[in-house]
Amino acid sequence: MKLANVDGRAGLVIDDRFVDVEQGTGGRLPSNPMGVLTRMAELEGLTMPDDAPRVDELTLGPPVPRPSKILAAGGNYQDHLDEEGSTAPGEPNLFAKLPNALCGPTDEIRIPSDRKEVDWEVELVVVIGKRATAVSEADAWDHVVGVTCGQDISDRAEQFRDFEQWTVAKSFDTYAPIGPYMVTTDELATPDSVPLVCYLDGEEMQSGSTANLIYSVSTLISWTSHRCTLEPGDLFFTGTPGGVGFARDPQRFLGPGMLLKSVIPGVGTMENACVAAEPASRAA
Amino acid sequence: MKLANVDGRAGLVIDDRFVDVEQGTGGRLPSNPMGVLTRMAELEGLTMPDDAPRVDELTLGPPVPRPSKILAAGGNYQDHLDEEGSTAPGEPNLFAKLPNALCGPTDEIRIPSDRKEVDWEVELVVVIGKRATAVSEADAWDHVVGVTCGQDISDRAEQFRDFEQWTVAKSFDTYAPIGPYMVTTDELATPDSVPLVCYLDGEEMQSGSTANLIYSVSTLISWTSHRCTLEPGDLFFTGTPGGVGFARDPQRFLGPGMLLKSVIPGVGTMENACVAAEPASRAA
Repeated sequence: MKLANVDGRAGLVIDDRFVDVEQGTGGRLPSNPMGVLTRMAELEGLTMPDDAPRVDELTLGPPVPRPSKILAAGGNYQDHLDEEGSTAPGEPNLFAKLPNALCGPTDEIRIPSDRKEVDWEVELVVVIGKRATAVSEADAWDHVVGVTCGQDISDRAEQFRDFEQWTVAKSFDTYAPIGPYMVTTDELATPDSVPLVCYLDGEEMQSGSTANLIYSVSTLISWTSHRCTLEPGDLFFTGTPGGVGFARDPQRFLGPGMLLKSVIPGVGTMENACVAAEPASRAA
Repeated sequence: MKLANVDGRAGLVIDDRFVDVEQGTGGRLPSNPMGVLTRMAELEGLTMPDDAPRVDELTLGPPVPRPSKILAAGGNYQDHLDEEGSTAPGEPNLFAKLPNALCGPTDEIRIPSDRKEVDWEVELVVVIGKRATAVSEADAWDHVVGVTCGQDISDRAEQFRDFEQWTVAKSFDTYAPIGPYMVTTDELATPDSVPLVCYLDGEEMQSGSTANLIYSVSTLISWTSHRCTLEPGDLFFTGTPGGVGFARDPQRFLGPGMLLKSVIPGVGTMENACVAAEPASRAA
């Protein structure tokens, strides 16, 4: 199943049409996507009304709009570590992105006019479906309801200044587009081998597969759940493969007028245009 | 006003008694503390029913139980930087704590049996009351509804291993006790000079004042709001003064059987007992 969010209302995408969940269940399920993702099994056999709109005529929001937390794995692909000149962490290297950064699959990425080193990172994003405390790796996928595509947009100047806490650099408003859909795990032919590609203005920048994750989805969930309870709706950005802008020679960065395209076959495509926003420098 | 949380229900503390907000307003205000903190002005003159229980007979939860995010300032007191051998960051050094870590002012701090370097950090915690995007320092306090006391419990072994992303080390379940109340800012005689003290088993470990913050509350809010929109209910841990355990000679850490007491005069006292929990080592 494919869960989408239009104006804060959950819908299933069936034959390229958007079926509103609350309407389609006669009010049995809520309209809020956060309340639906724990009840996906109740949506089997949802019937499509004749007037269901085509999904490509709608503007989609982030399929999971209000997670209690967003975790992200740093340095989780060898080719990305190589281009950075880093080595793999001895255990998962996690940081948080903040929920204010979430936006939809065609929303604009707003880059403050005084920020010149803003970079892309296409990632597979895993959506927790069941509370996870101290789960084993063998049981980890049972706590996942689905996946989506995400961009871990990163202000490199902010990320690599005089300390290395990355959260703010990766959590400016609009720096976490996700979508277009949350696709349930049963639709993934090979959940541990998902391809992902990123294009800037049509030119391929990144191409990878989660088969090459240093710490697998199972390991990330199990490891984290022994420390921090994961809640339904929590998001896990699993890391980015090589090909980011700051590691290129010459370096390349996002700027107004550019189009960032992110593709996970079977999950969908995001197209986020970059626009200029007010400067981020501190006001007096 | 003092806002408290008992079993997920908001109440005002008046004359040491707990007045349920939903009941006291005849259902005009919701029971959820997250829905009340944006409507504190509507609670002026709340009348106390004769049967309102004494607050010291109740078990309090965290006064703000479900923030959309928790930000925290690292290295924000000179005496703490000195004991660490660090220097002040050129701009605020922020990291995230995760909401699963929140617990109440008398809840147990659960320390996994394989973690031996768990430390205390008493802090003033600011509660956002109004959405803040790109606000000036002069306007920052207008976006704060109140303050509470918090402990930024930190697993130093996890924090200082082969990379320095701090979020997980500071977000184990129960590693963010807050409370006992959220006290509205109008009750603070000197909002930019709030004393705070921390005791371990009755022995004073930390004593400071937010008058010594390197980056003030106003600066933290303004600086952040130019990057990340702050939402009502968001929490800001403002930093800890000197006296933490890992910087002592000999070092001292939290362990099962110890009692951690945190005091902010006018806000209240937290007493969190430390207990042993299952090991955090990764299961196969």
